[in-house]
Amino acid sequence: MKFDLLTTASGSNARAGVIHTDHGPIETPVFMPVGTAGTVKAVHQRELLDDVGARIILGNTYHLYLRPGTDLLREAGGLHKFNGWPKPILTDSGGYQVYSLAANRKVREEGVTFKSHIDGSTHVFTPESVMDLQRAIGADFIMAFDECTPYPCEYDYARKSLDITHRWLERCVKRFRETEDLYGYRQELLPIVQGSVFADLRRQSAEFCAGQDLFANAIGGLSVGEPHEQMYEMTGVVCDILPKEKPRYLMGVGTPENILECIDLGVDMFDCVMPTRNARNGMLFTSEGIINIRNEKWKNDLNPIDAGLGGYVSTFYSKAYLRHLVVSKEILGAQIASIHNLTFYLWLVNTAREKIMDGTFKLWKKEMTEKVTRRL
Amino acid sequence: MKFDLLTTASGSNARAGVIHTDHGPIETPVFMPVGTAGTVKAVHQRELLDDVGARIILGNTYHLYLRPGTDLLREAGGLHKFNGWPKPILTDSGGYQVYSLAANRKVREEGVTFKSHIDGSTHVFTPESVMDLQRAIGADFIMAFDECTPYPCEYDYARKSLDITHRWLERCVKRFRETEDLYGYRQELLPIVQGSVFADLRRQSAEFCAGQDLFANAIGGLSVGEPHEQMYEMTGVVCDILPKEKPRYLMGVGTPENILECIDLGVDMFDCVMPTRNARNGMLFTSEGIINIRNEKWKNDLNPIDAGLGGYVSTFYSKAYLRHLVVSKEILGAQIASIHNLTFYLWLVNTAREKIMDGTFKLWKKEMTEKVTRRL
Repeated sequence: MKFDLLTTASGSNARAGVIHTDHGPIETPVFMPVGTAGTVKAVHQRELLDDVGARIILGNTYHLYLRPGTDLLREAGGLHKFNGWPKPILTDSGGYQVYSLAANRKVREEGVTFKSHIDGSTHVFTPESVMDLQRAIGADFIMAFDECTPYPCEYDYARKSLDITHRWLERCVKRFRETEDLYGYRQELLPIVQGSVFADLRRQSAEFCAGQDLFANAIGGLSVGEPHEQMYEMTGVVCDILPKEKPRYLMGVGTPENILECIDLGVDMFDCVMPTRNARNGMLFTSEGIINIRNEKWKNDLNPIDAGLGGYVSTFYSKAYLRHLVVSKEILGAQIASIHNLTFYLWLVNTAREKIMDGTFKLWKKEMTEKVTRRL
Repeated sequence: MKFDLLTTASGSNARAGVIHTDHGPIETPVFMPVGTAGTVKAVHQRELLDDVGARIILGNTYHLYLRPGTDLLREAGGLHKFNGWPKPILTDSGGYQVYSLAANRKVREEGVTFKSHIDGSTHVFTPESVMDLQRAIGADFIMAFDECTPYPCEYDYARKSLDITHRWLERCVKRFRETEDLYGYRQELLPIVQGSVFADLRRQSAEFCAGQDLFANAIGGLSVGEPHEQMYEMTGVVCDILPKEKPRYLMGVGTPENILECIDLGVDMFDCVMPTRNARNGMLFTSEGIINIRNEKWKNDLNPIDAGLGGYVSTFYSKAYLRHLVVSKEILGAQIASIHNLTFYLWLVNTAREKIMDGTFKLWKKEMTEKVTRRL
């Protein structure tokens, strides 16, 4: 793989680049739709390609390991073959889900023991097993196994957690380097910077991660409940240290506003369940602001969902029709809203990229932040 | 509107024809996907057109009247404009839903009083109001307001019910003829033959309905629990009386086997929730037989859902992937299974049409009935 950094915006750390993978190029900044169990919920693969314009999607190791399991994924020739998604895939390490979903979790130096949220069965994740699982899933981008600290978090806990995350990272790197790409295309490992909201821990972690000299670097443990200003501060601290010539991925972030702000700080890759999860609850992100489509005010609005956005779903269906579907709990409502929100998120990062390239990012970001934060 | 009867199969009453409507031609025999609340559940409008190849869909007057309501549909310019479906729409009369869904139902000569299953509010349907509602929805095909008898049903109840259905039909015809097409395209009223499983009542009703000289004729009150043989017998009795030069619509039928059998008896139009409802439960109709995709035996089957069928969904996704989605309760599972089953139903009627035209219907029907009834 190769990362071409094309431009850095004037008066900003915002960057435009291209990651070249064996599954095609990824223009950055990029938003990656979350496909937890091998499916971006309520969206067909061809819709991701043709309507959303997704360039890369996520899978969750925890979910895929439990169901359908890596035996079947290996038999299929990897997740791309299994679900028919032809472009790059990034998998998380399962760490976050083990902490947020699984029961009876026990963290030891060796790894984490937990019970499945599906059937209560007991499992162990270690840095080594998680590398093997992601190799087997066939992720183009493999994430290191880390401990994601909650918020708030005592300094002492964060420091000890960071130490174990770093020791696990070394074991991940070792295992990753001892093993081979399973399906003939290049797989890359990314370390995850942790350290909660403590600048000195974040700096220490950024230096430790950068020192592994992996293909790209990730920032984890943010957008877990801390004030946005703290998230921006930590992201800034870390981006100052992470090497400019490598892609930077801020995990699990966030609102359109968060994404604009963190692009400004030098982040290249984002993922978040917000556009799809909120879609299923009737919350729409549009180029003019936020809409709760369940509100009575949209009942008779026969205008397109977002004419400014283009694309089949956002211009073909009206707000009134979508509201009717959502209020009636029709599956098509979730489908339309999910495609729309993802189309908006990709439009946002694509437009940011254009503005970075043409030198007007800062001005556009200011105007756009006002729009995307207002409630219509 | 105009119906061209092109061929009648040799040794059978099966027919191939074309109904010409202001929303385009409908080649018959045809299956009409059910779009209860203005949406065929889990299927985008363009998927109905491009993947399923649907030529006409249904809407339910009862559901659309309660939500979103005919005021909004009139404001939109009719259901076609509201949901973006460009081809013909048929609406049922609401009668069946009033009997099966609504509470506190009271049938009087004037009409039916009932409580909404959504909010418990009280409403009245009369033959006249139901004509007005379907005009406002903008259906190309409007159904008469009838009483659909349950099964089993005493002869005496069936006879009395039939009398009221016939009196209501005369009121429907009167109101329909007194009112105009609302949106500039032709709307046609269809009478519904009732009479439960009693051949003499069915004959009487078929003659009464045929005597109204409307554009087409429908057969209701079947596939409500009676043995298949009785359904076929009644359909045969009625088809012998209904005029050959007009389309015949058998309401709410049925399994692939039922459809083949009733095409053979001379029916031209079918609708049923089975392909979409069963899809959401993981039951697939394929050109080789019936599949319960939840079964363990499909877990590792990486072959297409139905390679014999063609089309994106049925060939792009594997049985193993679809099983994973259905078992994981992923929305995409319902989407794929729904499109697949509808694609199969349309394939079935399209192939029947070809075989009627080329003179091999009877032979093909025998082979196909064996296939579609076996469980894989």
